[in-house]
Amino acid sequence: MADKTTPTANGMTLDEAHHIIAAARRKALEIGVPMNIAVVDTGNNLTAFARMDGAWLGSIDIAMSKAKTARFFDMTTADLGAASQSGESLFGINTSNDGNIIIFGGGIPLVRGGVVVGAVGVSGGAVPQDIEVAEAGAESFNNPQ
Amino acid sequence: MADKTTPTANGMTLDEAHHIIAAARRKALEIGVPMNIAVVDTGNNLTAFARMDGAWLGSIDIAMSKAKTARFFDMTTADLGAASQSGESLFGINTSNDGNIIIFGGGIPLVRGGVVVGAVGVSGGAVPQDIEVAEAGAESFNNPQ
Amino acid sequence: MADKTTPTANGMTLDEAHHIIAAARRKALEIGVPMNIAVVDTGNNLTAFARMDGAWLGSIDIAMSKAKTARFFDMTTADLGAASQSGESLFGINTSNDGNIIIFGGGIPLVRGGVVVGAVGVSGGAVPQDIEVAEAGAESFNNPQ
Amino acid sequence: MADKTTPTANGMTLDEAHHIIAAARRKALEIGVPMNIAVVDTGNNLTAFARMDGAWLGSIDIAMSKAKTARFFDMTTADLGAASQSGESLFGINTSNDGNIIIFGGGIPLVRGGVVVGAVGVSGGAVPQDIEVAEAGAESFNNPQ
Repeated sequence: MADKTTPTANGMTLDEAHHIIAAARRKALEIGVPMNIAVVDTGNNLTAFARMDGAWLGSIDIAMSKAKTARFFDMTTADLGAASQSGESLFGINTSNDGNIIIFGGGIPLVRGGVVVGAVGVSGGAVPQDIEVAEAGAESFNNPQ
Repeated sequence: MADKTTPTANGMTLDEAHHIIAAARRKALEIGVPMNIAVVDTGNNLTAFARMDGAWLGSIDIAMSKAKTARFFDMTTADLGAASQSGESLFGINTSNDGNIIIFGGGIPLVRGGVVVGAVGVSGGAVPQDIEVAEAGAESFNNPQ
Repeated sequence: MADKTTPTANGMTLDEAHHIIAAARRKALEIGVPMNIAVVDTGNNLTAFARMDGAWLGSIDIAMSKAKTARFFDMTTADLGAASQSGESLFGINTSNDGNIIIFGGGIPLVRGGVVVGAVGVSGGAVPQDIEVAEAGAESFNNPQ
Repeated sequence: MADKTTPTANGMTLDEAHHIIAAARRKALEIGVPMNIAVVDTGNNLTAFARMDGAWLGSIDIAMSKAKTARFFDMTTADLGAASQSGESLFGINTSNDGNIIIFGGGIPLVRGGVVVGAVGVSGGAVPQDIEVAEAGAESFNNPQ
């Protein structure tokens, strides 16, 4: 299904975003943790968002910010976080961009043909769980079947 | 598919929200205008969001605020807007709630058993188009098949 | 009951604020409209707030802003509103003070000994209903029994 | 007393919130520290708030944010804080959600039948005092008499 009626390129279709969310949701159900899942496009604008039943309300914003952060700097939020601890080079970066920066894992860039065209952000569990679910979403984009 | 692993009631499941978005999207495709579509739950927290390919970027925020406004006051944003013109009783209401208030059509409460349990907000076209698409979404919730 | 352990004067005790809220709530129950009710003190800081069961979520912020507005300018929000319509002298004032200004009725200053020592704000119904309930609250402060 | 004139479920009545605030206030008077006390409902919307006479003005916002934080993540703010120190998994989380996150003690979820239906937040003293007063409020909800 193609929604586009005007030729605005954004590097990510809604169907692709929904495909990513569906893959992440399957992983979240598999590990038994309800998650918030967000997908942004090349321009770092929200393409799709889903809050699974019972997922933390405070993670709605965090999932979106994780996706935005991953596209802001074209790296995972886990990698950005490592450089943002007290004493490290980017300490304090999380108050930039109106505070829409998350410096722990769960945000992953989406790459097509070697180019970052968006990002996925997941929040709702322990950080390793968020990362596992975000990776399932990113994997489905990088290797569609 | 039930995501809920902890019994937190929010009056709206993700599947219901996706069903509403799908119905609204079909109507948007039918009239040929790509839309942003948002669904909030009883507590006015975002449940799901979708931006159709090519939809206005400035309408991401407006769609979310239309949904929130409709739940904030349990009425359509069109009805709220009629009372918010200069000289009318609610003139100026749109600067309340951190400006997350939209006073033109496209936000509609979602009702179940006589109780407002959420709202849908649509933005991306002329206001009558936004209303038409939001009504298609709300209709699918009120009369699921 | 006196809570104060340090002599910080604010012109309004919590017991007085709760007395105002109780009086307003009785009036709201009498007219059958659930309301949000806020009381601020001399320094325009929130002293007490109550949301009656089923009251509009969007009126939480509006009740607080009505109280603040009434103390900001030591006049009712209805009076401020009359001067803030398009073409009138204060048109646009509602975007000042971070948007925490409401320019329709329901906010009323609280006066003791000819001095404004706080304000009450009510939101949840049609504007005349909000005013009626706010007046019941203000009356109970001005004429305690 | 039931305020509800429209059947909107929010998981917490105003009377319940006032009962929690009264219990917290008694504990605050007992330890001699005036407190700000906030209660939110299932949807994380403010239900009631009280500032005791002489309580810190800067703690009005903190009490509300503590309550919100406890409901945002369905855990105490003390527990969230432990995971949010530099080098820990959630470091930086406090700039999310528009900064309405507090990562020290005094916010506690309110549970009914195993379901989180709101939260209480207390601020005005040393953190152990805030926690003691919040626990008195939460205890009164979990074990009403």
